[in-house]
Amino acid sequence: MKKSLTVIALACATLVSTAANAQFAKPEDGIKYRQASKVLLASHFGRMVPVVKGEVPYDAEAIKQNVAVLSTLAALPWGAFGPGFEGGEAKPEVWSDAKGFDEKRENFKVAIQELSTAADSGELAKLKVAFGKAGQSCKACHDGYRKD
Amino acid sequence: MKKSLTVIALACATLVSTAANAQFAKPEDGIKYRQASKVLLASHFGRMVPVVKGEVPYDAEAIKQNVAVLSTLAALPWGAFGPGFEGGEAKPEVWSDAKGFDEKRENFKVAIQELSTAADSGELAKLKVAFGKAGQSCKACHDGYRKD
Repeated sequence: MKKSLTVIALACATLVSTAANAQFAKPEDGIKYRQASKVLLASHFGRMVPVVKGEVPYDAEAIKQNVAVLSTLAALPWGAFGPGFEGGEAKPEVWSDAKGFDEKRENFKVAIQELSTAADSGELAKLKVAFGKAGQSCKACHDGYRKD
Repeated sequence: MKKSLTVIALACATLVSTAANAQFAKPEDGIKYRQASKVLLASHFGRMVPVVKGEVPYDAEAIKQNVAVLSTLAALPWGAFGPGFEGGEAKPEVWSDAKGFDEKRENFKVAIQELSTAADSGELAKLKVAFGKAGQSCKACHDGYRKD
């Protein structure tokens, strides 16, 4: 069974780890993972822009579904910023100012929760406000902790 | 407001589109998106390997949470395989044999649903069976539609 499971897991693309409790076998895997999660976050955030700009009609159900995906994605990158995972687009301040980074992460978490509440309300005005706040929380973290 | 929203959206990394209803402004964005989703899928699939191999204790709640993330991720890549999105690791057969590709996608969807049911059951034996089937559905699609 051991061999067949290995073959199967490898078939699912890059197998990250077989070590006990290790989510990432090596730092590069963690960096790749957090960057991938950012690509998806940016996509699902960005596709709401035409709606909040009023360029396309507001479809409350579609927005709700998109924000549900966004909420799941928003929780993913943080486990890949642990000690030893320096590099990629992350500034050294992520680790040297871990407290400040944690605060920004918490602010982002709250902003995403508020976005979720706004999406559930079905009110475009609320969505616009929460979307703006979520975007600001992205920016606040990028300004201090992401390389240009 | 238009300008500030743009600034905010750009702060959330790569803004993919401001065109009406377009999830991806250009095919490269779609290819990047589907590859990113595969990185995350592989990670969340791979981190269950030590459990099904018996190398680490079975934590039913942790597995359930991981499979919930996996279920969300499993739905993401497919919208980025539309007409005009050829390239990346995808073989031309994705488009020339769209019916066959759709069947593989449906099989994967069912396998992920079964994995979710197995995770909810809290029984390791069921998880192992469903994990194996899900892995086989990955492999079945990769064999025919992904470049080596």
